[in-house]
Amino acid sequence: MKRLEVNSPEVNPLRVVLVAPRNPLNIGAAARAMSNFGVFELRLVNPYEVAFREARSAVKSEHVLRGAREYPTLAEAVADCALVVGTTSRGPRTLEHPLRRLETGGKAIAKQLAKTPVALLFGSEKFGLSNEDLSHCHWLMRIPTRDEHGSMNLGQAVAVCLYEIVRSPKAAHVAEPTPPADAKAADAESLERLTLRLEEVLALSGYVHGEGGGSTSISTTLKIRRLIRRMKLDAHDAEIWLGMLRQIQWKLISYNK
Amino acid sequence: MKRLEVNSPEVNPLRVVLVAPRNPLNIGAAARAMSNFGVFELRLVNPYEVAFREARSAVKSEHVLRGAREYPTLAEAVADCALVVGTTSRGPRTLEHPLRRLETGGKAIAKQLAKTPVALLFGSEKFGLSNEDLSHCHWLMRIPTRDEHGSMNLGQAVAVCLYEIVRSPKAAHVAEPTPPADAKAADAESLERLTLRLEEVLALSGYVHGEGGGSTSISTTLKIRRLIRRMKLDAHDAEIWLGMLRQIQWKLISYNK
Repeated sequence: MKRLEVNSPEVNPLRVVLVAPRNPLNIGAAARAMSNFGVFELRLVNPYEVAFREARSAVKSEHVLRGAREYPTLAEAVADCALVVGTTSRGPRTLEHPLRRLETGGKAIAKQLAKTPVALLFGSEKFGLSNEDLSHCHWLMRIPTRDEHGSMNLGQAVAVCLYEIVRSPKAAHVAEPTPPADAKAADAESLERLTLRLEEVLALSGYVHGEGGGSTSISTTLKIRRLIRRMKLDAHDAEIWLGMLRQIQWKLISYNK
Repeated sequence: MKRLEVNSPEVNPLRVVLVAPRNPLNIGAAARAMSNFGVFELRLVNPYEVAFREARSAVKSEHVLRGAREYPTLAEAVADCALVVGTTSRGPRTLEHPLRRLETGGKAIAKQLAKTPVALLFGSEKFGLSNEDLSHCHWLMRIPTRDEHGSMNLGQAVAVCLYEIVRSPKAAHVAEPTPPADAKAADAESLERLTLRLEEVLALSGYVHGEGGGSTSISTTLKIRRLIRRMKLDAHDAEIWLGMLRQIQWKLISYNK
């Protein structure tokens, strides 16, 4: 993770994550919409143009761009988030994830924001989010555009999503009943550690290829990652699973010697 | 009134009116958002750049730009509309017009559109709508941006307004995550098989007592059973977990021999 500059104090724990954005104007437009709606944490994964600070259309949003951080991988960009939501213009038929319309998804995000940080992902202008990116998501959200022309401009998509998430003053500011101390959702970093650990155990056991240290196929990794996200683990249970898998792995390795 | 080209058949009787827009990119962005949300009637009053058809960011929205009409005065541009609404980022104190937030204004516009055409006005990027422009409006509408940074990019403002006007009020309540075809919840029998299998694997790995076929304690069984139930597995995922645990168990036993 490379921190570009000191960040301003956070207000809204929503992280806007742009994955592989290619156009500095769009990065600037995203930053401007964030500033308009009071969201200040911008994260960039592998941006095509590192010179995003030049983004000219970012009127009055310099502080959002200044505080933006760049990450080499999506996993690192969402590590502190207990809910990771991907945006897509695709219909449900081609997706392996639960899909919500923005109206309902926005409410769910606003609710979660009262408790934990949430990451909202936007893919590159040309290709959107890859299957690899999507596998990091708990669910996906779609802006209700026309079927014939579903794909929105990146800056406009960010603006519409933030409007919907922020607009309900209740959802954003009134705290939900405090959840029990241990029912905090597991953050993305824990889920990713769990994903990798399960993958290693499955390789050692011969369930997937890659036994003996070899790496498993990408599609297997994606399947395991989605499987783990569907478990909707809280932080405590994620620790339990991690401990169980660690012990199983240790046993398999010790036999294998 | 100068008609630039034959207009496509109207679907939504909403007219998006850009007054004195200066940047072709913004005109293109407005057209793209219109196409995304199924609004096709774009009207331009005294545009600064007549070359708005060059707007490069208008992916797939050529038909909106092609059908756009140019008017010398605002009065002519809104002549056929029974309701004229101006957008502004200014607060109520400086205005002589009734002001509505987008959430309530959008509903009122959607209601009126069922009966008559409605004009929605956006001012120039730099100055917004003039007092002269505002005098043509029945009321004004404000996107709920921050007081400290109220002014939105033109293309983004159009996108957010159209989203609010077009989104189905019904959809807000109905559209739950699309359940995949096989998302039937796992039945209790599968969950119990899973519980027992996990218990056996944990015993074999030494995570819990009972290695070598001995039985684990009752409290351990209860903990594992609750853990499995908290996963909220669907039938398909339950099968996957069962298969994985079976393989791990087989491997542990084969080593143990």
